[in-house]
Amino acid sequence: MTDVLIPWPQLDERHGPWPDGTRVHVWDGRTPTAQLSAEALDAVSLWVMPYAVADAHRLLDRLPGLRAVQSLSAGVEKLQPLLPAGVALHNGRGLHDASTAEHALGLILAAQRELPRWVADQAAGRWEPHFTRALADSRVAIVGYGSIGEALERRLLACEAEVVRVARRARPDSGVHAVEELPALLPDVDIAVLTLPETPGTTGLFGARELAALPDGALVVNVGRGRTLDTAALLAETTAGRLRAALDVTDPEPLPGDHPLRHAPGVLLTPHVGGGAASFRPRAERLIVEQVRRWAAGEELLHPVPAQA
Amino acid sequence: MTDVLIPWPQLDERHGPWPDGTRVHVWDGRTPTAQLSAEALDAVSLWVMPYAVADAHRLLDRLPGLRAVQSLSAGVEKLQPLLPAGVALHNGRGLHDASTAEHALGLILAAQRELPRWVADQAAGRWEPHFTRALADSRVAIVGYGSIGEALERRLLACEAEVVRVARRARPDSGVHAVEELPALLPDVDIAVLTLPETPGTTGLFGARELAALPDGALVVNVGRGRTLDTAALLAETTAGRLRAALDVTDPEPLPGDHPLRHAPGVLLTPHVGGGAASFRPRAERLIVEQVRRWAAGEELLHPVPAQA
Ligand SMILES: NC(=O)c1ccc[n+]([C@@H]2O[C@H](COP(=O)([O-])OP(=O)(O)OC[C@H]3O[C@@H](n4cnc5c(N)ncnc54)[C@H](OP(=O)(O)O)[C@@H]3O)[C@@H](O)[C@H]2O)c1
Ligand SMILES: NC(=O)c1ccc[n+]([C@@H]2O[C@H](COP(=O)([O-])OP(=O)(O)OC[C@H]3O[C@@H](n4cnc5c(N)ncnc54)[C@H](OP(=O)(O)O)[C@@H]3O)[C@@H](O)[C@H]2O)c1
Repeated sequence: MTDVLIPWPQLDERHGPWPDGTRVHVWDGRTPTAQLSAEALDAVSLWVMPYAVADAHRLLDRLPGLRAVQSLSAGVEKLQPLLPAGVALHNGRGLHDASTAEHALGLILAAQRELPRWVADQAAGRWEPHFTRALADSRVAIVGYGSIGEALERRLLACEAEVVRVARRARPDSGVHAVEELPALLPDVDIAVLTLPETPGTTGLFGARELAALPDGALVVNVGRGRTLDTAALLAETTAGRLRAALDVTDPEPLPGDHPLRHAPGVLLTPHVGGGAASFRPRAERLIVEQVRRWAAGEELLHPVPAQA
Repeated sequence: MTDVLIPWPQLDERHGPWPDGTRVHVWDGRTPTAQLSAEALDAVSLWVMPYAVADAHRLLDRLPGLRAVQSLSAGVEKLQPLLPAGVALHNGRGLHDASTAEHALGLILAAQRELPRWVADQAAGRWEPHFTRALADSRVAIVGYGSIGEALERRLLACEAEVVRVARRARPDSGVHAVEELPALLPDVDIAVLTLPETPGTTGLFGARELAALPDGALVVNVGRGRTLDTAALLAETTAGRLRAALDVTDPEPLPGDHPLRHAPGVLLTPHVGGGAASFRPRAERLIVEQVRRWAAGEELLHPVPAQA
């Protein structure tokens, strides 16, 4: 018997029967763990963790037979140090591409086309149209050109924007620039979107120097991780009215109610909801079904995370 | 000599010299008309009207030699009846495709991903993330599948949405449905976008019956003309909380400060700014240069509007 623990019931009704010899248990991360049978917990070898449940990892202590964990997040920097030795970690690479890329696009369009202003005018009874910036014809740097970055690029190109790809290392064959080239690239960029993971190498990667290299009026978007952008430096540039920003992730998170970023001019904030949209669930279910199939068949699981990322 | 009147100066500096034998005069629609020389006005045969200047047509009386008018708007239903007999009208088809399509996309994303709520939470000091609807996997009907509709479709497909094309007449070869099929199509649609011109045939086209055919929670977007959507019927459906809406055009326009649409739940309004973004100007300049070249060479102008549209 292979015992797996997953976050949602009845996946077999939508996706077909589980493999023979598989026992599937369900824990949504919110039900008291006392309701899980001790026999089931003892037997679980693969655990698909509930998504966006901050303390779900508390169950780790109660899974003595655990050999692999599937996270449904792309960023697993907080989970990784909590795993017992010998437990393999797999991330949710790709599951959030559509939702996060479309959220980034929504933030860009809202900022360029001034949606927050129109929302205020709607409530205040005003009707005062004026010309705005556009996304079409803009040059957009994607800083962290990975899985989400590629999904965002497809959307931006359809919007007649131009894309500048930036990643850790240059890949000249596919037009990807190295992160070291940023200071030379940024003066010609209208919009810089950060889609970076949180690692020792990315903390504060986009700092005062990068911000200063952007032209007046440029837009900074962050849908990766809050700490990759220097909040104090961004606050200075936005308070001065020189740059604009649209951020789904912040440093710290949650952003305190009295944090000055909330009232800085030209700053639009959303509370880390980039990945959390309806399109996530069907993609996550398909991954779970495939991983359980592989696990039962003794095949390699998808999306392994290297032991020290 | 061919005399033309256009809204912006110095186009030749960006686009190359005007054709030989052409005299180019400039009126921006805001400068007092008294500053235009009588000789110039007498001689003008082609007039490119200033964009979005409500009373620019007042100059029509002062152009005795006028033979053609180029509007920079796609919708010319108000201008057409004002033209003297024998003056040909040309519209700005295509100039607003990028700006209007991206604005429609911004409205859709703002509604699906709940941007107005996050804007309010930002100011109120809240950080309360929750799952939202998505655009990806949604089925979107484009009602009025013309120039703007095609531009919107390209953007929606890149966002992993499905598109249902609707126009006046069915074009089975290209998957376009006739408007009569709407009641049968709408029950399976998540989002209906209106990109219709204002004509006798489109007034109130999307009314109580079409709205009732949409499923609970569906989103209605209008970036065409306000009168193509039945405002009273939409108000009833949104006030009841059954449908949502995002409207760039309304009936009437401007929308009065105390109009109930402004405070209906799930309704997002912008003040007819779909076409008015930075990407319009370079496209409009290129059209003007091409039309002046054709006019001087005695060729047909682009985008003629039939005498009775
Ligand atoms: N807002 C949200 O709700 C949300 C949702 C999902 C994910 N995220 C975040 O988004 C991050 C990116 O996700 P993804 O799936 O696109 O990851 P990915 O496919 O691994 O791509 C990450 C990209 O970042 C680049 N990168 C890594 N370290 C770098 C460094 N030191 N300097 C420059 N570039 C560096 C990588 O460059 P190379 O290609 O050269 O390696 C790669 O292009 C996740 O880690 C997660 O934290 C946020
Ligand atoms: N919000 C803004 O700022 C903004 C900016 C620009 C334009 N607009 C408005 O958008 C409108 C559309 O522009 P466009 O350039 O896309 O025009 P277009 O290329 O002429 O397309 C119009 C579409 O509407 C369809 N249509 C016309 N009458 C219809 C009827 N009675 N029933 C069903 N469908 C009908 C046409 O169907 P067929 O293909 O079968 O003829 C065509 O598909 C303009 O007329 C203008 O009023 C608004």
